[in-house]
Formats: sequence, C-alpha cells, structure tokens
Amino acid sequence: MAEMITVRAEVLRDYCSAIFAESIPEEEARIVSDNLVEADLLGFYSHGVCKVADYLKRFEDGLIEGKTNTEVITETATTAVLDAKNGWGQVASIEAMNMAVEKAVTYGTGFVGVRNSNHFGITSYYTKLAAEKGCIGFATTNASSLMVPFGSKTPSLGTNPISFAIPVGPGHAPVVVDMSTGNTARGKITHAYKTGTAIPKDWAITKDGRETTDPKEALDGYLLPMGPKGSGLAMVVDILSGVLTGSLFGSQVPRMYEDPVPQQIGHFFGAINIEAFMPLESFYESMQERVRQTIESEPMAGFERVYMPGQIEEEKKQHQLENGIELPIEIIQELEEVGKKYGLKLFEYQ
Amino acid sequence: MAEMITVRAEVLRDYCSAIFAESIPEEEARIVSDNLVEADLLGFYSHGVCKVADYLKRFEDGLIEGKTNTEVITETATTAVLDAKNGWGQVASIEAMNMAVEKAVTYGTGFVGVRNSNHFGITSYYTKLAAEKGCIGFATTNASSLMVPFGSKTPSLGTNPISFAIPVGPGHAPVVVDMSTGNTARGKITHAYKTGTAIPKDWAITKDGRETTDPKEALDGYLLPMGPKGSGLAMVVDILSGVLTGSLFGSQVPRMYEDPVPQQIGHFFGAINIEAFMPLESFYESMQERVRQTIESEPMAGFERVYMPGQIEEEKKQHQLENGIELPIEIIQELEEVGKKYGLKLFEYQ
Repeated sequence: MAEMITVRAEVLRDYCSAIFAESIPEEEARIVSDNLVEADLLGFYSHGVCKVADYLKRFEDGLIEGKTNTEVITETATTAVLDAKNGWGQVASIEAMNMAVEKAVTYGTGFVGVRNSNHFGITSYYTKLAAEKGCIGFATTNASSLMVPFGSKTPSLGTNPISFAIPVGPGHAPVVVDMSTGNTARGKITHAYKTGTAIPKDWAITKDGRETTDPKEALDGYLLPMGPKGSGLAMVVDILSGVLTGSLFGSQVPRMYEDPVPQQIGHFFGAINIEAFMPLESFYESMQERVRQTIESEPMAGFERVYMPGQIEEEKKQHQLENGIELPIEIIQELEEVGKKYGLKLFEYQ
Repeated sequence: MAEMITVRAEVLRDYCSAIFAESIPEEEARIVSDNLVEADLLGFYSHGVCKVADYLKRFEDGLIEGKTNTEVITETATTAVLDAKNGWGQVASIEAMNMAVEKAVTYGTGFVGVRNSNHFGITSYYTKLAAEKGCIGFATTNASSLMVPFGSKTPSLGTNPISFAIPVGPGHAPVVVDMSTGNTARGKITHAYKTGTAIPKDWAITKDGRETTDPKEALDGYLLPMGPKGSGLAMVVDILSGVLTGSLFGSQVPRMYEDPVPQQIGHFFGAINIEAFMPLESFYESMQERVRQTIESEPMAGFERVYMPGQIEEEKKQHQLENGIELPIEIIQELEEVGKKYGLKLFEYQ
C-alpha cells in the first residue's frame, strides 16, 4: 500500500494553477488546473494532477502552444468546427462546448468539433457544462493509437471515451456516463507490472497479437477494446472526433508519451436543449422518478447499494471536497519537483 | 441442428406484406414487412419475420392501432416530438428519422423523438436511412423492462439498443454499430433452456437476485447489463427515448409478451449533416482510409479477418440476397399458419 497524502482541493488547484501560469496565460492555467483537480476529486486519478508533469514536458518540448488561439473553421446554425491550433485541449474544449450549448439554446441542438487539439482531461468535465444549462451533454475524443479494433493485432484506436450528462433538477447531481471504450486503462496494467500480478487475459495482447496475462508483455503490446461493442463505439468516437473534425484519426494519432510530435487529436461536443422537447419542470420530475426507480431498488447479491451512473464519483467528490484529496506520496513529490523549478512550494499553499 | 428452409428475400417480403395488409394499410404493411425481412437478411433473426405472429397477436388483441396517425406534439428548427398514438413503431420511426434528416440538411442537425410507440424492429434500419442522405445517423429505443441496472435485482431497463450509421461513400457500405446494452439477448437463454445447456453467469440473475448458470432460473429472472458501462448506456437510452419524449420509461415499460397493454415505448432519432462540418468528398476520402486501416490490418491470433462494424452483417445480407434467407423450419411453419387464416400460402409467392 502506497503512503497517501491528503491535500485540500483548493490548495492543489491554486498550486497547479501557479505552476501552469509560469508558462501559459493565467486564465488558461486556471482552466487546466481545475480540470485536473476535478478528475482527482471524482476519483479518476489517472486523469488528475499526475498529468501536470506530463503536460509541462510536452509544453517544454515545444509540442503544445503557449497560448490557445482557436479559430472557427466552419459554422452553421447548429454546428461548428474549431481549430485549436495545437493549443490546450481543456481551453479549446470549454469554448467548443459553450458554443454547442449556445446553439442548442437558440436552435434546439448544437454540435461542435475541435481539430488539432491536445489531451483534454476527463470527458464528463464538458458534458456537465451542458447539463448545468438545461441541456443533455455529449462529448467524445480520440486518443493515442494504443488499442486494437476487435480481432486485429494492429492498433488503430485509442481508448476513445464517451460521456453523456443529463440534468436531474436544481439540487440534484446530474446523471453522468463517462466511459472508456477499452477493457481497461493502461495505468492498471502498469500497476500490475509494478506489483508483480497477472492481468486478466481480456485486457491486452502481445506485440505479435497473442493473448497474455503477463503485464510486461501487455505493456509492450496493445490494449483490447470492450469486445466487439466497445470496438464499434471506439470506431464511432474516432470518426466523430477525428474524421469529422479534420483531425488525425485512427493509426495516424501519435502516442502522448513516446512520440515527440503534436498530438493533433480531435474532440466532438454536443448539446441537446431539453426545453425544445418538453418543459424543463416535467423533465426534471420524470428524471427524479427515474433516479428513484434505480437507487431505491434492492441490490442484487454481493452489492450494498444501487447507484445511478456517476453517483459514486459524485459522492467521492463531495467527500474529498470536505476532507481533502488523498493522493499517493509519489504524485505529491513529483508535483513538488515541478514547482521547485519555479520557486513554488506546495506547503505554502496549505 | 434445426432443419433449415431457404426462402428468397422478396418472396418473404411480399408474403409477410400480404399478411399485414389484411389488417393495416398496404403502405404500412410494406414498411413493417421490409423492416423484419431486413433483420433476417442481416442475420438478426430475433428481430426478423419470427415477429410477424407476435405483432399480429398484439394487433388482434387490440393493443396496436390499425393505422399509424402520428401527430407532431412539439417542434423547433432542429427538434420535434412525434406522438405515434399507439401506431406501428416502424411507420412512426421512418417518419421521425426522415424529419430528423430534413432538419439536418437545412440546419446542420436534427433530433426527433417518438412517444407512445410500439416495437420498431432493428435499430440500424433507421440510422442507415440517415447515412444514405449524407448524414451520421443515431437511434435508440427503450424496451420491455427485463434488465436490471448494474448491482440491482429489480428490472427497470430494457436491453435498450443504440445504433450509429456513418456513410463511407458511393458504392461502399456504411459503418454501422447496432448494439444491445445487455450482455445477451433473452432469445439465447431460451435457446440454452431448450438445448439443456448451462449459461455464462454474467447473462442473467434469478428472480431473487442471485447469479445463475441455469437457463430456467434465468428465464424466470432478469437480464444483466453489459457491466456498469452497458448499464449506464442503457440508462441514457431510456432517458433519451422514454423520458425526453414523454413516453413510459424504466420500470413503467410493460413487457411485450406478458403484459396485455399498449407498450407506449419511445424512440429517439438523430441526424448530423456531414456537409455542415466538411465537404462530403473529403469526409468519404478519410472514411475510406479509416476502413483500410482496419480491414487491411493483420488479425490477432484466433481471427481470420478484421471487420469494420456492420461489415459481417452486410456480407451476410449480400449472401442471403443472392442465395435466399435460411430460416428454421419452425419459423416458416409458424408463418404459414398465420397466412392460412387469410388464405395466403407462402409457396404461391415462390
């Protein structure tokens, strides 16, 4: 068991924000930092502040721009494509989702793609923006080509995530789906390797296309999709995010860590205005009934409670907002190393 | 192995159409019949002509209207809700998807929900209509409440399917995802029961919420979703199709066979106009590259070829269009029984 350190969310946010602000405009630094801390709050640690060093390394290697200047490439009443021009994924993505919501509020629906972008953090960060505005939010992104299509031994997919967020009404957390289309995260294989444990055989294949339970062989190989269905969804995500936006797609997408070139990935954001379909009040009433049907139902054997999608993460967030975020000491030490370069000390933010 | 009979698609289509035309307008009969035969052509036999007798039984019991008179309940530039008024799911759904496509062609995107509807057959039947018009098609429907949310022992979900169809260019089959959000179809459990074989323990639970490998216990119990991700997607589908359209949702949805009441299910259709994002020609060029990356990749151990989503079904369809549809003799006999009532004989259509 790793030693854990507890840090308050606002401390972590301010500290990471100060680090990024040494390199990029303060407003952008705040956005990126908030996005990473939100991931930790929800328990998506692989997309949390452990990414600070990775992002900065790519920035220092000249692979991400110092300021995000998006450009609208094409626009209709309900659609647009933004060129992120190799700026920060989080910054371009908030802009894109806000555009989608604005279009939805005016015309019923809005869908905005982003091209030439970078890692945007957790996908539900954006769909929740739509849900806060009375819309159903939808978001996807393509990602490093590390996963094989079902039945293939050649990677041409990322673990391409999909998120939906649907509002339930004032004072209620939204229903949130935020799922990778792969069977596992690469991070879990790394963890198995470090702890010397075997992995399930549906997580990854070897470099030459064989099943494996050996985490080392898996790390040298490729991830497996969540069966044919996950593979199909990952393909749709790649097409919406990569092909339709004019970004790189499929096997063209470089790897985030190994390939010293701009990622040029694409994202896709959608907003559907609920009021275009029915009065918001009626929708919320039905949604609260839909939630009750679920969480008040009896758990099956082996479960203690029944949760709505996103509820476990939301409860984790509320708990960590109150009690601080628990992170492995290695991540805290790495963050402190990064801050030292700029004379920033985490404990001064405490 | 069941004895199989081969029937040409157009024979089956005309015969089923003639049967339905005894009860509903000829145009509607043709639509329903074409939808069911298309399912058999693609190999989705559970949604094929085996449904003819089921549909007619519900019609004869007064549970489906004899003519589909849809009414537009609400409409904006890019959205609408149609009330199917307990008409035929297939008829209302084609109308809804055509509306969505028309809106997409004019405004970039179109999303149309249908309420108070009935079983609409295979989901990809509608998304392909959008793909034929240069749009990305999206469709969902909720269904009989036979599946539990992840961790629950109380059914409040159907096997709620999701489909996407994306055009690849003239002369190319579209990319088609058409997936249930459950781990298996109820039909497979029935088959296991009839053949006396055990089922995997992630297919279903018993009535009192325990895992089971006994198909009889499973049939008396409830279906399991495709893990937490499938459960989350099924919930989103129920909300889009049921809640947002003002239809029944969750545990309110009656079972198709056991409950002698109108189904009042809802569907949700979307179309995204590709030309609102980029010239169709460029999109097709990238799509063909996306297809090549996949199907020309080397298969992993245990696989002979790598397919695009929907390709296996499309090849099955082409084969069966040429050679006839192979169906178990029981289904043919059941169809002949139904036809006999109206003095219609299958062999006269051969």
